[in-house]
Amino acid sequence: MFSGAQVSLYPMADDFVRIILGSLSALDPYRERFRIETDDISTLLVGPPEELFPAMRDLHVAASRNSVHCVLHATVSRGCPGEPDDPICTPIGNRSTEMPLGRRIDGALRAATGATRIGQDVAAQLSLYPLGAGHHMDEIYGCIDFLKRSGVFGKSKNFCTTLRGDAGPVFATLSEAFLRFGSPEGHLALDLTVSANSPTAR
Amino acid sequence: MFSGAQVSLYPMADDFVRIILGSLSALDPYRERFRIETDDISTLLVGPPEELFPAMRDLHVAASRNSVHCVLHATVSRGCPGEPDDPICTPIGNRSTEMPLGRRIDGALRAATGATRIGQDVAAQLSLYPLGAGHHMDEIYGCIDFLKRSGVFGKSKNFCTTLRGDAGPVFATLSEAFLRFGSPEGHLALDLTVSANSPTAR
Repeated sequence: MFSGAQVSLYPMADDFVRIILGSLSALDPYRERFRIETDDISTLLVGPPEELFPAMRDLHVAASRNSVHCVLHATVSRGCPGEPDDPICTPIGNRSTEMPLGRRIDGALRAATGATRIGQDVAAQLSLYPLGAGHHMDEIYGCIDFLKRSGVFGKSKNFCTTLRGDAGPVFATLSEAFLRFGSPEGHLALDLTVSANSPTAR
Repeated sequence: MFSGAQVSLYPMADDFVRIILGSLSALDPYRERFRIETDDISTLLVGPPEELFPAMRDLHVAASRNSVHCVLHATVSRGCPGEPDDPICTPIGNRSTEMPLGRRIDGALRAATGATRIGQDVAAQLSLYPLGAGHHMDEIYGCIDFLKRSGVFGKSKNFCTTLRGDAGPVFATLSEAFLRFGSPEGHLALDLTVSANSPTAR
C-alpha cells in the first residue's frame, strides 16, 4: 500500500511566499511519520492514510490566518499500483473497509460527526475516483450519500460535491470519504480543493 | 456524452479579484459553444471536449499577465455516467479513439507538437483517471509514454506527471492526453494544475 498527497497552498496575497513559509510549522507534529518533498508546483506528503487530512487541515488553517483568502489543492491517492509498498504508509487503525457499503457509510458518519471544531469556516470541493474496480459508480454514489448526511454537505455540482462548515468537521468528513470508499486495497484517488475567506458570494 | 471542467484561478496577489475579473474576457470567443456557471469555488465549463483546453489556456494566460504568479486548477471530465447527454458536448472532430494505444500515441504526438507558441512559460501537473475500465493502468502508462515524448515533459512524480514549456504546446499536450486516452465513450477524469511565474526554484 502507498498513500499520500501532492498538496499546494494558494494564498491570494502579495506576500504569499511569507504566508506559505509561515504555515509550514503546522506540519511539524506530522514530520516524523511523513516523507515530505517540495518543488515549485506542490509538496508531496507520503505517510499513513489516516494522518493525511489532519495534516492538510492544520496546514490550510495556518495559512488562512488573518482572513487571508487561501485555497489548498490536493491530489490524494492510495493503493496506486504504480507505486511501491512503503512501510511509512501502514494504516494506523483497522477501518474494516471490506464491510458492505451501507455499514461503511454508517461508520463514516459516526467517525466524522464527532470532529472537534477549529474556528475557521471553509468551503471544500471533492471528486472521488475509485480506479480499476468494476463498480466505481456504486462507491461514488455511496460516498455522496455519506456526504449528504455528514452535516457539512454543501451541494452537488457537475463532476464534484461541495462541503461547507468548520474546518474540523469538513476535513474529518473528507478523510472518511478517502478511507471508507473504494476497494480496501484498490487504487483510489481524490481531487480536493478547500477554500477559506473567499470574498465571493456563494 | 458529457464533457466539461470545474476551473479555478488563483492569482497570488492582493488584487486577485481585479485580476480574475479582468481575465474573463478571454473566454468570450468560446461563450457561444459553452455553458458557463460560476460560484465561489470554481467555474463550470460544459462544451465540446476539443475546446476545453484552448479555453483554459487563454483564461490562464490572460490572468498571468504582468508577471503575476497565477495558478489554474481544473477538474476535467468526459463520459461521466452520472451526467446527462448534452448536445453542447458533441465532439467537433473525429479522433478515432478506438484505435490501438500505439496509434493513439502517434496521433497525439502529431497533434500536440505543431502547437503555436504563446510567449508565456508554464509548469503543469496532471493526473489522468480512466474510470470503470478493466485496464486503467495500461491507458495511464500509454498516456505517460506520450507525455514523455511530447517535447514538454517535465518529470514523473508520485501520483502525477509534470510538463514545462510555452503555454501553447503545454495546453495542446494536455488536451491530447484528455482526448486520446481512456475508453472513447468511457468515463475519464483529469486533475490539472498549471502554474505561471512562480518565484520558487524547481
